[in-house]
Amino acid sequence: MSPPDSVTSPDSYPVTNVNKVKRVHERGRYDKETVHAILDAALVCHIAYVIDGRPYCTPTSFWREGSHLYWHGSSASRMIRSQKEGVDVCLTVTHLDALVMARSGFHHSVNYRAVMAFGKAHVIDDPEEKLKLMDRFIDRIYPGRSKLIRQPNKQEFKATTMIGMEIEMASGKIRDKHVADEEEDYEGVPAWSALYPVRQVIGEPSDCARQLPGLTRPDEMSDFVPGARLDEVMSKTYRRTFG
Amino acid sequence: MSPPDSVTSPDSYPVTNVNKVKRVHERGRYDKETVHAILDAALVCHIAYVIDGRPYCTPTSFWREGSHLYWHGSSASRMIRSQKEGVDVCLTVTHLDALVMARSGFHHSVNYRAVMAFGKAHVIDDPEEKLKLMDRFIDRIYPGRSKLIRQPNKQEFKATTMIGMEIEMASGKIRDKHVADEEEDYEGVPAWSALYPVRQVIGEPSDCARQLPGLTRPDEMSDFVPGARLDEVMSKTYRRTFG
Repeated sequence: MSPPDSVTSPDSYPVTNVNKVKRVHERGRYDKETVHAILDAALVCHIAYVIDGRPYCTPTSFWREGSHLYWHGSSASRMIRSQKEGVDVCLTVTHLDALVMARSGFHHSVNYRAVMAFGKAHVIDDPEEKLKLMDRFIDRIYPGRSKLIRQPNKQEFKATTMIGMEIEMASGKIRDKHVADEEEDYEGVPAWSALYPVRQVIGEPSDCARQLPGLTRPDEMSDFVPGARLDEVMSKTYRRTFG
Repeated sequence: MSPPDSVTSPDSYPVTNVNKVKRVHERGRYDKETVHAILDAALVCHIAYVIDGRPYCTPTSFWREGSHLYWHGSSASRMIRSQKEGVDVCLTVTHLDALVMARSGFHHSVNYRAVMAFGKAHVIDDPEEKLKLMDRFIDRIYPGRSKLIRQPNKQEFKATTMIGMEIEMASGKIRDKHVADEEEDYEGVPAWSALYPVRQVIGEPSDCARQLPGLTRPDEMSDFVPGARLDEVMSKTYRRTFG
């Protein structure tokens, strides 16, 4: 069953046979707020695309602006070449949140937040738009950094392809609960059962060995605290750059 | 250029136009030792497959035995249905290891270990083999646990599909270095540059609220120490179960 507001509401992505969550369908989310929050908490996604009928799955960094997703690649890479003509892709983000050890194999699980976003990838040809996107790609991860670093030279600009995609369909899927066993197993199966949280954290920065004297971490990067969760840092930097 | 031993050595996966690393090709690895180590350190992969010409990218848990990869799904799920006939898939694993902040956008990067594995997915039909795999799926993550929990009942067994795939081609790709800037930028660009390590860690276990009294964590799970890196725990549990 799709949620009642799935097709008509501007706050939700349309639900079709492509993006409808079928397995454990009550975990499915189509509202933009949830879908975007899962996307914006991620640095890395996995993109599926088809070349000569064969599927490929490539990890890469990406970001969202409105209902558009952007990523980049060397102009030489296979993925980008195949996407130049505007091809179907599925961009997936997954946050692993916990391991769940139940009393039967069937109820072992993981907690997670995931999004599958579907659309047609296209190359950003306009040089001004491309340059702007290259800056935002940096600022989205490190707020304000595009102003501090050297701008791309001609060769770098040419060697980089920026790819965009409008999200045509998307589904979020979330599991966020503890051990959930069959009623008779709680007493009937004497197996220690628990949930282990999992999180991705950032560590102590290691300065470049050739750091110029006197340079310190820019204030805009104050979210990068060692031990901070990467998903929380990414969500914060997203808001710093895109409001 | 492919490594000299890529096609002839039994210790390496064959290099073809499908799996050859093209972008920053010096990061490519095809030797089984490296490819398998990256796979075995992961709990979750992303699988790309094609339905009606459209790519899908689904996250799921998996494991390796020799040159086979296995995963599971509800028999009802779209992915499994599409794979029943033996379809091409690309199974990708990515470990994010660091954020690398350089002095130009072009040299901003991440450290990572990734594998793309290509093959044809097929359903495990033999009931005995399927049952064995269901146990190993649990033990691969939690050594010895299949002996402690309730075995699948008829309904659970029927509702679960086990999928296998022989790795036909695979490529690993690793970036493991610090900031690497253009020579003139080290002195010419006054931007603080650093590497932030990133790691996925497990936290304090939270007992099931209905835990039977007297149960404690099994000895075989001694690798699950709060604060431990998930990739290291997964590598250890892999060796505990598969030697």
